Amino acid sequence: MKRPTIIDIARHVGVSKAAVSYALNGRAGVSAATRERILDVAAQLGWDAAGPARTPAADRTGTIGLVLARPPQEIRAEPSMVNWLAGMESALAEYGLVLNVALTSDEDAELGTYRQWAAERRVDGVIVTDLRTADPRVPLLRELALPAVVIGEQERVPNVAVLRFAVADEVRAVVEHLAEFGHTRIGHVQGGFDLEHTRRRNALLRARVRERLGTDLVKVEADPTETGAAQATWRLLAADPPPTAIVYDNDLMAVAAVARAAELDVRVPADLAVLSWQDSMLCRVVTPPVTALSQDVADDAAAAVHLLLELIETGAADDLDVPPRVLIPRASTAGGSG
Amino acid sequence: MKRPTIIDIARHVGVSKAAVSYALNGRAGVSAATRERILDVAAQLGWDAAGPARTPAADRTGTIGLVLARPPQEIRAEPSMVNWLAGMESALAEYGLVLNVALTSDEDAELGTYRQWAAERRVDGVIVTDLRTADPRVPLLRELALPAVVIGEQERVPNVAVLRFAVADEVRAVVEHLAEFGHTRIGHVQGGFDLEHTRRRNALLRARVRERLGTDLVKVEADPTETGAAQATWRLLAADPPPTAIVYDNDLMAVAAVARAAELDVRVPADLAVLSWQDSMLCRVVTPPVTALSQDVADDAAAAVHLLLELIETGAADDLDVPPRVLIPRASTAGGSG
Repeated sequence: MKRPTIIDIARHVGVSKAAVSYALNGRAGVSAATRERILDVAAQLGWDAAGPARTPAADRTGTIGLVLARPPQEIRAEPSMVNWLAGMESALAEYGLVLNVALTSDEDAELGTYRQWAAERRVDGVIVTDLRTADPRVPLLRELALPAVVIGEQERVPNVAVLRFAVADEVRAVVEHLAEFGHTRIGHVQGGFDLEHTRRRNALLRARVRERLGTDLVKVEADPTETGAAQATWRLLAADPPPTAIVYDNDLMAVAAVARAAELDVRVPADLAVLSWQDSMLCRVVTPPVTALSQDVADDAAAAVHLLLELIETGAADDLDVPPRVLIPRASTAGGSG
Repeated sequence: MKRPTIIDIARHVGVSKAAVSYALNGRAGVSAATRERILDVAAQLGWDAAGPARTPAADRTGTIGLVLARPPQEIRAEPSMVNWLAGMESALAEYGLVLNVALTSDEDAELGTYRQWAAERRVDGVIVTDLRTADPRVPLLRELALPAVVIGEQERVPNVAVLRFAVADEVRAVVEHLAEFGHTRIGHVQGGFDLEHTRRRNALLRARVRERLGTDLVKVEADPTETGAAQATWRLLAADPPPTAIVYDNDLMAVAAVARAAELDVRVPADLAVLSWQDSMLCRVVTPPVTALSQDVADDAAAAVHLLLELIETGAADDLDVPPRVLIPRASTAGGSG
């Protein structure tokens, strides 16, 4: 007889996998009556708590953690974050696991949260986003021996697997698109958040513009708000000669610039081509629609979850490269139809 | 001298605690004169916003919980959720508190999370959104004696305070706007999520349309996606005679309908007026821009946090009515300039 899984038990009892996991692991989370039914059915099916793979070990929490240590304005600047959360939730739901997100804008509270999670065994592992330069979280997670998937660029560290974006490919696609339409003077509006992947992307973009277009990229930093994006745009356009194309770190900033271009008598794309590093419904509905790098966030989030579960289950996981985002040409760069 | 609480200040000034909270936090919701009186009295009583009375006591966890038990597609359908999270984080950061969000789409896991949080004293209190009809969480939170602020409509329960939206006022504003432009045949596209406040809003909208316009509101339910919104729109427009105005539960659906109207040779607003119950950048950048109910989400989120902190601090808090959302007329109802 095949060994039953949590899924088998859940199906027999007619409850969720999460409820089975709670009950089998003797954790709070189900009513006494449900717990008894689950334990009865598990016994009938020959469940063996000490059994091998696929079943959460008795010391598992069934919870994956994410500390989001972003200032509130950075959270507001990236509505697509909800797609990440939704994608992770979807992937975790397959295993009956819960995603626990701690929000704080304070670094002490951020590091304290990981310490507390590890000390009190509240999570089985964590997903680490917004990697900073010399990020203090990486040595901390190593010290805590907390399995972690880091999104971004990171050297190999025990207990940590890396989900890496294909930034170099994306940079090449962006510069090629601009070259195709004859642009040489390129501006770049960066959101306020100085992250490792932003730095890396900036360096690659600057190098690629120099190599392919023979010019220096002009970068300005902006508050990641609509007003901040507009102000940064006007600052770039005040140069003599002004750039003919501007790349924005995210959709909110690119769309704000397009929506306000008329105020400064700037025609997009005739006077200025606009390109966004993130795609969203905003890029599609504004006039003209904005050329953007499109990413299947749900897929990436699921990949991060699966990588982490593998790491938790087996103690090791290879780093993973996600496919590069695809450039969707639209009218803001004269690259697509209106 | 005892450090004053919000209650002390409210008593001295003769206003509600909510008014004091609004004034101390520099928010809309009180008149300038009242605000000044409140700030004067607060200063006289020795109020110190950063003072130790507001810092967590030793037995506190410093963490506020939120269980978001939405299916992933509902999370994706409401990008403005990030504004709620950012608003809560902002308000909590003033007190050095952390927001802990558990995401799950499973009801057992949802209820289990509250049980676990209470049993293991992981949070000082919770904020409860997406209230369902006969929501099992309300009796559970009462049983667990976990301080909670419920967003929506809820009878008085110990340990639970309610943050209530001014739905009746909003419904009146919407129907008045439609009446002003001569609409009588009104459609309504509802997102898939059947919540208590949605039911209440639907009932009020239906009653108000009947009373003011003398017609029956035609409601269809839609998948809360762009495609779902478009399909629901075509279903409504297939009626004979078709509606001349459609109200959408959220910005994503309203903007999807506007963006795709041309596909069906429908002119907005000449053939169809479009109105959204939620405002966002999407409503502003689409052509024509969409008339919407605008809400200061950050203010509402801060109000929920302050209400919960008051409940935790004092063991009791009066329910709070947030100011009604304001209808922003735009070109999609011929109500504003392009």
